[in-house]
Amino acid sequence: MDSATFRKLGHQLIDWVADYRERLERLPVMSPVKPGEIRKLFAKEPPASGNGLADALLRLDESIVRGVTHWNHPSFFAYFPSNTSYASILADLVAAGLGAQGMSWQTSPAATEVEEVVMDWLRQMVGLPDGWTGVVHDTASTATLCALLCAREKSSGFSQNTSGLQGLGAPLVVYASQEAHSSIEKAALLAGFGKRNLRLIETDESHALRVDRLSQAIAEDEAAGRIPCALVATVGSTGTTSIDPVRAMLQVAHAHRMWLHVDAALAGTAMVLPECRRLWDGVVNADSLVFNPHKWMGVGVDYSAYYVRDPQHLVRVMSTNPSYLLTAQDGAVTNYRDWQIPLGRRFRAIKLWFYLLDAGVEGLQARIRRDLANAQWLRAQVDQAEGWQRMAPVPLQTVCLRHVPEALGGDEAALARHNLAIARRVNESGAAYLTPSLLKGRQMIRVSIGAEATEQRHVEAVWSALQDAARAETSGA
Amino acid sequence: MDSATFRKLGHQLIDWVADYRERLERLPVMSPVKPGEIRKLFAKEPPASGNGLADALLRLDESIVRGVTHWNHPSFFAYFPSNTSYASILADLVAAGLGAQGMSWQTSPAATEVEEVVMDWLRQMVGLPDGWTGVVHDTASTATLCALLCAREKSSGFSQNTSGLQGLGAPLVVYASQEAHSSIEKAALLAGFGKRNLRLIETDESHALRVDRLSQAIAEDEAAGRIPCALVATVGSTGTTSIDPVRAMLQVAHAHRMWLHVDAALAGTAMVLPECRRLWDGVVNADSLVFNPHKWMGVGVDYSAYYVRDPQHLVRVMSTNPSYLLTAQDGAVTNYRDWQIPLGRRFRAIKLWFYLLDAGVEGLQARIRRDLANAQWLRAQVDQAEGWQRMAPVPLQTVCLRHVPEALGGDEAALARHNLAIARRVNESGAAYLTPSLLKGRQMIRVSIGAEATEQRHVEAVWSALQDAARAETSGA
Repeated sequence: MDSATFRKLGHQLIDWVADYRERLERLPVMSPVKPGEIRKLFAKEPPASGNGLADALLRLDESIVRGVTHWNHPSFFAYFPSNTSYASILADLVAAGLGAQGMSWQTSPAATEVEEVVMDWLRQMVGLPDGWTGVVHDTASTATLCALLCAREKSSGFSQNTSGLQGLGAPLVVYASQEAHSSIEKAALLAGFGKRNLRLIETDESHALRVDRLSQAIAEDEAAGRIPCALVATVGSTGTTSIDPVRAMLQVAHAHRMWLHVDAALAGTAMVLPECRRLWDGVVNADSLVFNPHKWMGVGVDYSAYYVRDPQHLVRVMSTNPSYLLTAQDGAVTNYRDWQIPLGRRFRAIKLWFYLLDAGVEGLQARIRRDLANAQWLRAQVDQAEGWQRMAPVPLQTVCLRHVPEALGGDEAALARHNLAIARRVNESGAAYLTPSLLKGRQMIRVSIGAEATEQRHVEAVWSALQDAARAETSGA
Repeated sequence: MDSATFRKLGHQLIDWVADYRERLERLPVMSPVKPGEIRKLFAKEPPASGNGLADALLRLDESIVRGVTHWNHPSFFAYFPSNTSYASILADLVAAGLGAQGMSWQTSPAATEVEEVVMDWLRQMVGLPDGWTGVVHDTASTATLCALLCAREKSSGFSQNTSGLQGLGAPLVVYASQEAHSSIEKAALLAGFGKRNLRLIETDESHALRVDRLSQAIAEDEAAGRIPCALVATVGSTGTTSIDPVRAMLQVAHAHRMWLHVDAALAGTAMVLPECRRLWDGVVNADSLVFNPHKWMGVGVDYSAYYVRDPQHLVRVMSTNPSYLLTAQDGAVTNYRDWQIPLGRRFRAIKLWFYLLDAGVEGLQARIRRDLANAQWLRAQVDQAEGWQRMAPVPLQTVCLRHVPEALGGDEAALARHNLAIARRVNESGAAYLTPSLLKGRQMIRVSIGAEATEQRHVEAVWSALQDAARAETSGA
């Protein structure tokens, strides 16, 4: 493709993206396609000769858009929000256009130094003190794996340089709550700890980790000769946005020389509001922390912010230095290849930079306050509505609810079927997208607010849709 | 930002990218900035209020471009090539615009099904038979970590579900060659094997793994009660693009029930040429294989193709299934969250799709043949030039050379200083970018050909620049 064609197609695609965003609200949120429906629109064999993307726009409309679940739709209430602002889209265009690969400082100094700048801005924005240093990872799952690897190496005196986990006498143990994200278990298993050395601790009535049960589990492990290694605190759990007691957990972690990692994947963004920072009180003394600007901020997937208090330890765990990666500036600069699992890395920092140039901290704060207020509005509706039950406190932007019609009494199996049917009815209508989930064995529906385009009227609409679906399911319609 | 502003800025940025690409050849390949020079152009604090990206283009010109090392420059000969074609840039724009997150099929069916389609196209393109299945990872480092985790779990009877590596009786051992990429060592260490259980096997005069030494190492480990677990074959090593004997290594792997992983990060792309496939003869019987379309193909970073013969085993190692991730289609569809370490994932498949729509397989083949021919041209020049030494065979597109002036005789320390100085002189001139590297203790310079824009005249120019630099260094200028 020559540059003239690129210009022409590029202008068309910029308008295509803007058109898509403008009509987003009229599209079904969850893709209505059936399995295999998109695949069969494609040839089974690759094109032998190229056509210069002549039919690309047509193909996008015909083969792609119907198969997309629209994460930026104002009625996207599933999972956690994942916002890609216009500014972030433009930044991705720039990053792709430059095609820089920032594994080492020398391989694109700007990729490294802009990341240092914006990750320090972000540190200040969420109220972390000097002494915390950030790096961009793809996702919280990967950052958490790095945290557990760092914990493993600290507790084992750098066993990776000797016999690894295979040479340890006493097993190392990892602790988190039963409401911790599945990525904690995945990371513990991939890091080699083994499921028998992972303790998922009971939670209290607010679904926060019970410190008494944690201490009990640690005592049992120590009595059996096992070594407490890592503790993961969840600030804003995926199920209900419950908040583990970070300060109390830190005391336990320090008493037993354990690594404390904080998973604030969603909630971290709320910390741009000073009034929210009580939710992670104590966090400044943790060892590592992850949150995802690609969730509730305006920064498109993937952009996960991993902060550590001892970057030298991270580098010691992650670095390898073959001769072909040495550069003249080593020692004087940051080489992010040593802060992560992959070697290569895209220029992702430009996304946060563009987003903040566009919106400013105050613009972001206003949006987060709007979303928190919308969640409180929905909470109040649920609390007042007959036949509806709120399943958990609402410290952030997710409201967990279920419909409890009198006829079903306390029949949990029937309630589960009923609420799954309600969620499916709403999702398949295309009017909104919600996530059904289990909380301590009870079926609920999560309404997770925070798409950039979501205004109160969209929350009102999903509440109506839920009530309509409940009525239809109750009447057997 | 409203959509009108997005359209206006988007059109400007498309032209900015095209302008950048058009003037690329006149820019210094390696960024000339000093450490800290870019950072000091930025405020220490984030912007309180936004300005709608009003000065974004100016800031890009002033703060970014000088700090970028231009990976798509026609005189980029460092590391391995990393091509981002115009088509791939447009695809990244579309992916960012859609903002889809394809962790599960339901969360964007098109993201999953297009990936299934294009990864199967790619399988056919490199001559892998039916029965191999691919998934997009970020980098070969991550894919190799997954491969060693899969090997670990296979040899240990799924120890992650019991006591992990901490509960094994006999240690598991990983084997690769001394010329294997540093990511193999990193993966083995992160996976918990420990450096003492990693064997880097001696190579022959072509820098390929010596199977006799491999068998010897395995015999010693088995005699000592250790269990051979994984063997990594390198097809196209980073140092010299040396080719390990895959077929012979497979026999050893099968005899000892080891996992065989093939690292063909660069070389995989060459397999679109049938005449190159002899280089990985036997590969069809390996267990896993990774190569990077984001290197020598036109697909921008990051896009690593990880192929396995038993996807169910990969899923068993990588999957966790909390209630909030269950969907109605589970079992009938592919949920790529279970094929990788991260949970979230961008819509990367669209990059390969757009690239192939644009160039076609034949367009790609023509470019690869051009690059192979350019490398042979340079090889012939080096072989004929007095005072120059070719350091390794040239099976692909990288020529390893050094200048050996008569005055320095066989003084390896002086030759190392001399050749490092030559590489630095060329790199700092901005005329080309090369990677100095060590080969069995001897300093050499790698000339790695394969940027999309690199024609023979650019290879002629870097050869002239090397000769000029050698003369200048020899004369002490």
